[in-house]
Amino acid sequence: MKFICNKDQLLNAINIVSKAVNPRTTLPILECILIQATSDGIHLTANDLEMGIASAPIPAKVDKEGQVALDAKLFGDIIRRVSGDEVHVEEEENQSILLTCGTSRYQLMGQKAEEFPALPEVEKNQTVIVKEQDLKAMIQETIFSVSMDESKPVLSGELMEGKDGFLSLVAVDGYRISYKKSQAQTGDSQIRAIIPAKTLREIAKILKDSQEETKIYFTEKQVLFDIEGNRVVSRLIEGEYIKYEQTFSSDYKTKIVANRSDLIAALERATLVSRDARKVPVKFEITNGKLTLSASSEIGTAREEVYLNTEGNDLLIAFNPRYCIEALRAIEDEEVAIYFQSSLSPCILKAEEGDSYKYLILPLRL
Amino acid sequence: MKFICNKDQLLNAINIVSKAVNPRTTLPILECILIQATSDGIHLTANDLEMGIASAPIPAKVDKEGQVALDAKLFGDIIRRVSGDEVHVEEEENQSILLTCGTSRYQLMGQKAEEFPALPEVEKNQTVIVKEQDLKAMIQETIFSVSMDESKPVLSGELMEGKDGFLSLVAVDGYRISYKKSQAQTGDSQIRAIIPAKTLREIAKILKDSQEETKIYFTEKQVLFDIEGNRVVSRLIEGEYIKYEQTFSSDYKTKIVANRSDLIAALERATLVSRDARKVPVKFEITNGKLTLSASSEIGTAREEVYLNTEGNDLLIAFNPRYCIEALRAIEDEEVAIYFQSSLSPCILKAEEGDSYKYLILPLRL
Repeated sequence: MKFICNKDQLLNAINIVSKAVNPRTTLPILECILIQATSDGIHLTANDLEMGIASAPIPAKVDKEGQVALDAKLFGDIIRRVSGDEVHVEEEENQSILLTCGTSRYQLMGQKAEEFPALPEVEKNQTVIVKEQDLKAMIQETIFSVSMDESKPVLSGELMEGKDGFLSLVAVDGYRISYKKSQAQTGDSQIRAIIPAKTLREIAKILKDSQEETKIYFTEKQVLFDIEGNRVVSRLIEGEYIKYEQTFSSDYKTKIVANRSDLIAALERATLVSRDARKVPVKFEITNGKLTLSASSEIGTAREEVYLNTEGNDLLIAFNPRYCIEALRAIEDEEVAIYFQSSLSPCILKAEEGDSYKYLILPLRL
Repeated sequence: MKFICNKDQLLNAINIVSKAVNPRTTLPILECILIQATSDGIHLTANDLEMGIASAPIPAKVDKEGQVALDAKLFGDIIRRVSGDEVHVEEEENQSILLTCGTSRYQLMGQKAEEFPALPEVEKNQTVIVKEQDLKAMIQETIFSVSMDESKPVLSGELMEGKDGFLSLVAVDGYRISYKKSQAQTGDSQIRAIIPAKTLREIAKILKDSQEETKIYFTEKQVLFDIEGNRVVSRLIEGEYIKYEQTFSSDYKTKIVANRSDLIAALERATLVSRDARKVPVKFEITNGKLTLSASSEIGTAREEVYLNTEGNDLLIAFNPRYCIEALRAIEDEEVAIYFQSSLSPCILKAEEGDSYKYLILPLRL
């Protein structure tokens, strides 16, 4: 193997595939990036066995084709720090790699490419096409409510649904539901697949705020994301996802419309009287034109007044403030409407028009 | 106690005194800030028993004098987050504090001021006056080589020496010496005091890059820093500091003059072949006009070439690269001279002219 390529292009590909490197593994080969020099350029691959990423080919002058696996952290650190523009890579003998760039010259022991686990092939039948920025927003604005409870495997992922020109993601953790949808090219596909949260988190880091199209291919057990030529393959979670649709009632008895950042700031101030992460409930007292937040613990009490638009009945209800803050932070609109039924029913946060996002939060007993 | 003061001025004082709050203590009173409302304003004090800080008085409208101790983290978090400009504080009954600002209203349980440990009085006989920015630089450019070895208490601090119009700080850890001096008003004082590293680290955070004068008062057991009216009192470390002066020889057989940032970058690249923090030695091979750095471990070898001015004999010597990088980072000059005697003698980094800083590093055996 012998090739010359551009440092920045190589680094970009390393940064992408590194998201599938498992830094805590007992299999040293999984700490590596597979480097393959072929006639159409350099291909980098990483695979933690749950998720694998293969980079788009990096343009290169390939003098001799070949392949080797190199420690991902070392390879990344070197390419990130060397001073030159062109990276020269050459296999001198069995897996011994000479890497030169700028004033630097490294001799590195690689591992056999044959030991590297290949990415599974994914058939390209069921396809959805969505804009990069839309998929990124869908993940970022729902992922925080994936369940941490490992006893329910289906809730450790998000349900992705695609049909009739829309793609949606939903995350449920037993106390709240976060839902976001976007326009997409779904064709005749009827998608319903549970994608592991870890895969979605890593994909969100790769996705840019761009209008570029991301293609998503689904099979029964796997999903493949094609992001600007980089391929991310992940297993799907098996099982039945919970029926969440009917919990979003459109009836309400009380409604408030608040400035999102003001409400977040007031909630954060009210929670200061709870020590550490043990959050105390925050009471919402809704009267005509005013929301009074209050919290109380052994170290003191806090009270906040927020003036806003209200509609319907007065109400006293309590929530875990973290759930309210996380949902409010995820919303992009500056004004947000919150709908209530009673002290014992969940509240729903959603846009006043359209249904591109909706959040449901269960109340705490007063 | 009842007063009104400006939020930003109060927050500034909280930020300063909080550096003497011990967040991991079994004595709850040490997690507090003492608030004293007097006719000349509000005084905040924190004290971890090794070091104490009393703020400069904060201008305030004091309706009723008094004092109370409040949890430092809670008090700081609240004042940092509230939205108004004026903070109202009132003791309603025994240590129960009503704090209002903007739309927020807090009721907080304080502790008895009488339980708070008073700061020791420091006599103002031996005085040194130095510019804030100079004292800050002296600390930041030497503190990294304070010893971590707890068996030698004197080396857990820095030796501060003041006489003849100069103030200096020196830190020694058995492998290296870092020394920095600045002009100062020393009067007739002959200062030689060992100041705990922790005190110096916290003081460096309080000091600004300003020309303001800092007054330092020394007694046998204590030191008092007066920084813009804020008083930091610390114990001194007892014992004899090691004689470091004669180790800085001015003879040399080999000299290099390097661009500081280029040399740091080359050293950092050479150390990439050492896994984790277990740094491998970096060899310096000095020949006419060239420095070749090399390092080798089980994962590979690295070689860097740096072209620079050399003088005297060729030399092969090895160092712990971290010590070289830390000394180079501390130096402000863009060009740095390094002086060598032999493969077994320490190297000395210093300015080509003057002696405002000097660093000594022991070599490793080849």
